[in-house]
Amino acid sequence: MAVHPLWEKYPDIRQDLIETKKVMEKSVKIRNKDITQALQLFFEAGGKLLRPAYFLLFSKFGEEVSEKKAHRMAASLEILHVATLIHDDIIDDSPMRRSLPSIQASYGQDIAVYTGDFLFTVYFHLLSTSTKDFKTIEMNAHSMKRILVGELDQMNLRYNTEITMKQYFQHIKGKTAQLFEFACYEGAHFAGCSKRLQLTAKRVGYNIGMAFQIMDDVLDYKSTETDMQKPVFEDMKNGYYTLPLILAMEKNHDAFVPYLEKRTELSDKDIKEVQELIVETKGLERAEAIAERFTDKALAGIQKLPACEERDILYDVTSTLLKRKN
Amino acid sequence: MAVHPLWEKYPDIRQDLIETKKVMEKSVKIRNKDITQALQLFFEAGGKLLRPAYFLLFSKFGEEVSEKKAHRMAASLEILHVATLIHDDIIDDSPMRRSLPSIQASYGQDIAVYTGDFLFTVYFHLLSTSTKDFKTIEMNAHSMKRILVGELDQMNLRYNTEITMKQYFQHIKGKTAQLFEFACYEGAHFAGCSKRLQLTAKRVGYNIGMAFQIMDDVLDYKSTETDMQKPVFEDMKNGYYTLPLILAMEKNHDAFVPYLEKRTELSDKDIKEVQELIVETKGLERAEAIAERFTDKALAGIQKLPACEERDILYDVTSTLLKRKN
Repeated sequence: MAVHPLWEKYPDIRQDLIETKKVMEKSVKIRNKDITQALQLFFEAGGKLLRPAYFLLFSKFGEEVSEKKAHRMAASLEILHVATLIHDDIIDDSPMRRSLPSIQASYGQDIAVYTGDFLFTVYFHLLSTSTKDFKTIEMNAHSMKRILVGELDQMNLRYNTEITMKQYFQHIKGKTAQLFEFACYEGAHFAGCSKRLQLTAKRVGYNIGMAFQIMDDVLDYKSTETDMQKPVFEDMKNGYYTLPLILAMEKNHDAFVPYLEKRTELSDKDIKEVQELIVETKGLERAEAIAERFTDKALAGIQKLPACEERDILYDVTSTLLKRKN
Repeated sequence: MAVHPLWEKYPDIRQDLIETKKVMEKSVKIRNKDITQALQLFFEAGGKLLRPAYFLLFSKFGEEVSEKKAHRMAASLEILHVATLIHDDIIDDSPMRRSLPSIQASYGQDIAVYTGDFLFTVYFHLLSTSTKDFKTIEMNAHSMKRILVGELDQMNLRYNTEITMKQYFQHIKGKTAQLFEFACYEGAHFAGCSKRLQLTAKRVGYNIGMAFQIMDDVLDYKSTETDMQKPVFEDMKNGYYTLPLILAMEKNHDAFVPYLEKRTELSDKDIKEVQELIVETKGLERAEAIAERFTDKALAGIQKLPACEERDILYDVTSTLLKRKN
């Protein structure tokens, strides 16, 4: 079993992630062989397993924990993440995910709805059989609720050319930062770390999540069909107006509106023109600068942690992930 | 606030259900006003609240329980049920639910996906804040998983003209009986009833659920557009071949196949002809006889419970619900 090359340099966490993946693959074994196979292929397709990894790394800062339980909790986080991805792909009608056809493209949206639902139950089941701490259950329920409220917020913002930075931040908080924040926090909580360390973990996770999502949104405007595994400008066509565009629109709102009104009908020529407009108005640079601020905060938080190997790994991985040289 | 007339004769349980509905309405209050309102309207539209009611009735057979917690647990069951209904309506492209436009018809399938997901989180949240019993959490996770595995099974059976009675039973077990079974069992467990009584509750719930679903499937073949709030023969058009048809096909398989192959293209004339064929082959009568066997088992189980007012209510309601005179 392989995990993403990001983890090659860190044999311990790499091994933990291999165990986590085993739990994931086992937990989706059901009568319906098609679904089992589709999910296992999806897991094999090599996501970075960031949420389990951050959970596991933060779980090393406290008392020694049961490895088996830690792997199950870590797996539950990734399963929850994959459930939301599968449902997101229905909403966005996405043909691809991780270089594979999405579940909805392969099996139709009906199966995709139930497969996502099924993964919610797997998440819940893994969680309920790996902790005896009610606070953990409650935190999970609360966190999951916030993620879904975030998804619903997002639906209200689609194709809204008046979207503000504040609305965007609120949206990506729910969509992405919430689960990163929770993974880090849950890891520290699971290991019985001090309240203070738990809070630091939470903030670090939040800042990583925000930076990660902004960088991802920047990439959507920078990429060409060939270097990404998904069509370019997908977000804009789908009505998700993200930070680079929001910042660009601040400079020249009226220039963008005629393009945005074309929605999914944007031509290749349009896309090229919008790309140029965003470059002119420095939308990408300014978005990257904001991502960098979140990254800086995340790294500063990590440096406040007690010195140990895991702290160094957290620093290293977070820098690499968020494409920082220092 | 009103509840279904079924409960009018039983003031105590009626009051409990009013409190349960209050919990439900409160628990879906979110920033997104549209969704809140749509869900509250849906709750107001008057489902029978059977799963909460069975939970509450069985919770009276043990120690005295916290009413507040009981109402939250009862609400969690109905919320889980509604979540699955909303997603079912996406799969079936249903325009109506409880005489109202379905969420997917009103807001589109995208919102419907996330609204169902959101309700899963509400369910989980209600549950996690109303019990401190890990067995309850585990049972819920297990039960929810079985429901979703059942939904996935069903997808495999669609438009399968070779479907067997065994497959049908397995399917309705997951789709319907599982949650009835669980509601009864959880009620008895919540009140700390004896293991034996818990087991009786479970069996009663299972038999009610099976009978209830078969009766519902029978109605789909009996009804006319006017007396049901949904189009007739919806199941057959959608490829769900239920007991009356399965039994009819046992008698004359080849007569049905040409109709079934038309799938959603069945004309009114076709429907009339299939209806006549089912009458000829006694599909409905035989299905009703099987439902009756489940009903009998449910009622016999109820009679084994300790004599009390709730036992009589259980007997009475179950008889009425499953359209029995005795």
